[in-house]
Amino acid sequence: MAHRTAAPDIDQPRLLRALAGETLDRPPIWFMRQAGRFLPEYRAVRATTKDFISFCLDPEKAAEVTLQPLHRFPFDAAIVFADILLIPMALGQKVWFEAGEGPRLGELPPVEALADHVDSVVDTLASVGETLARVRAALEPERALIGFAGAPWTVLTYMLQGKGGEREEARAYAYAHPEQIAQLTDILIEATARYLAMQAKAGAQALQIFESWAEGLPDDQFRRLVSEPHARLIARLRELGVDLPIIGFPRGAGALLSDYAAAVPVQAVGLDTQTPLGFGRLIQAGGKTIQGALDPLLLRAGGALLDARVDEMLAAWSGGPYIFNLGHGILPDTPIAHVERVTSRVTGR
Amino acid sequence: MAHRTAAPDIDQPRLLRALAGETLDRPPIWFMRQAGRFLPEYRAVRATTKDFISFCLDPEKAAEVTLQPLHRFPFDAAIVFADILLIPMALGQKVWFEAGEGPRLGELPPVEALADHVDSVVDTLASVGETLARVRAALEPERALIGFAGAPWTVLTYMLQGKGGEREEARAYAYAHPEQIAQLTDILIEATARYLAMQAKAGAQALQIFESWAEGLPDDQFRRLVSEPHARLIARLRELGVDLPIIGFPRGAGALLSDYAAAVPVQAVGLDTQTPLGFGRLIQAGGKTIQGALDPLLLRAGGALLDARVDEMLAAWSGGPYIFNLGHGILPDTPIAHVERVTSRVTGR
Repeated sequence: MAHRTAAPDIDQPRLLRALAGETLDRPPIWFMRQAGRFLPEYRAVRATTKDFISFCLDPEKAAEVTLQPLHRFPFDAAIVFADILLIPMALGQKVWFEAGEGPRLGELPPVEALADHVDSVVDTLASVGETLARVRAALEPERALIGFAGAPWTVLTYMLQGKGGEREEARAYAYAHPEQIAQLTDILIEATARYLAMQAKAGAQALQIFESWAEGLPDDQFRRLVSEPHARLIARLRELGVDLPIIGFPRGAGALLSDYAAAVPVQAVGLDTQTPLGFGRLIQAGGKTIQGALDPLLLRAGGALLDARVDEMLAAWSGGPYIFNLGHGILPDTPIAHVERVTSRVTGR
Repeated sequence: MAHRTAAPDIDQPRLLRALAGETLDRPPIWFMRQAGRFLPEYRAVRATTKDFISFCLDPEKAAEVTLQPLHRFPFDAAIVFADILLIPMALGQKVWFEAGEGPRLGELPPVEALADHVDSVVDTLASVGETLARVRAALEPERALIGFAGAPWTVLTYMLQGKGGEREEARAYAYAHPEQIAQLTDILIEATARYLAMQAKAGAQALQIFESWAEGLPDDQFRRLVSEPHARLIARLRELGVDLPIIGFPRGAGALLSDYAAAVPVQAVGLDTQTPLGFGRLIQAGGKTIQGALDPLLLRAGGALLDARVDEMLAAWSGGPYIFNLGHGILPDTPIAHVERVTSRVTGR
């Protein structure tokens, strides 16, 4: 299998060994959005910058919040603090965040105007590279650093709708204007590949592609909007010389997840909360590492049900290459004690 | 197989033959929410009653709008005009509809108060039976009449949250209060079974259970909240002497759909827009009729993509027992010409 080490390298960070297809004595663990609002120390740093985009582009502060959860919990990886909407911003679309409302985007610029910005994306987002370099320098060698970007379709849904929500407008647009979608997807693939290549050069050791809005797509649209663009993005990354392992996370793919795993040359597949345990094993059997899939609502609820589910996941998936994670981002009101309980249960620390 | 006819009965309505497991020369067709806002004649009748619940409980008007789409299109079935929230209303929870905002529910009454209403649900909703009787009397014999109810978990999400939306509150409640959920589910199963038995007696020839909010549930919660309650509801219906075919529609079940099809003794499984064509064939191969799964957004968009997708579904699924339908309710701004085009393409009329 391409991009997998021939023999286990026990000096490698646990996360990278799992991504190389190794079955470990216990899975590495990290949580999506682990650098975030559930930590009081995050909220304290966040409060020092009004604008969210400026906060993401401040390497000192972004590096600090990236490292915060690693000080508290025995996580095996840090993920750079950034946002998937930095790409549309760098392509010239206005992006801002309304308090309590989430992201808002200005009018979609013409395709030609977006294309004109592709060459400057890496310069515009150079500070994300600086954040990665700072974090890598501070991080223990046994902990891995993950870079990431939004997948083309998910980023497009924001660019087309101007906000989050039900995605119906974007899905309707994809039916009505397939050629425009293809052009926009091409631009996003090129910009995202260059951005991720810059992250790799700056110190990322693995890359995750977040497809947060795969849900509801019929199989033909899923192939057109998700699987094929992911495969092309990865091919472009390899052309650019990036040989890092890649985690693809098509949240809400449902039964299409096995098609995705077969069609897209990722090293690992992120599983969402709804992925059945048996389905995860099938994906491992197909030669991919899996990552996921604890329900953030259960992590927040805590109690005996949480312990039982963690044990069930470990029993179901630890026999193959597996990275323990949530099935979606951690919720802001999650008690810290619950995170301690799960990380301790998984790592024994 | 229980509840399936031993030999094809060509005098039966096409829908019932498909539900009996027959593979037909062409599938029967009907659309979820076919009696609804996309029809100007519906909007005209709807405008004569201010309150939506009163409108549902007016047998003359409800029967009229139930029949309207059958006058326009060669649909093979009518589905009684009613609402899944009539059950919480009949159990004593206040239900109303805000224009443009959807349903709103008052505070959840204590479990004992809800339980006290179970015996009166059939009387409270007797007018739905009258609607069914009127429609059955007016309907041609080759067209079938479908009764329906919301599934316990979907109805519970509304009862707990007081409205629609992301369902996170209800899912969180299910983790925090499993015993209360079990009690509420018991009440809903009994009330819904009696309500559906009343519909069967009044003229329904098939029953559909709408689980609109199966999405996002991990496999253990899906079994607890969806598959097991569906199986118990059906067992109770059989105890009450109802031998009609049943369509279960767990929308958003994703890869869990095959578990559902194996665990729940429905005659047909409703497929949502995301169900892969191959997955639908697997469910047919497992001995169930399938129903679905055209994307309502594609129906609204129209054009060559719509024609191609209809043909693709017919090619993929017509070799087994199949009911052509949407994967979700028809959208209010769907052009009537698009519905004509699809019904004509499927029926040849």
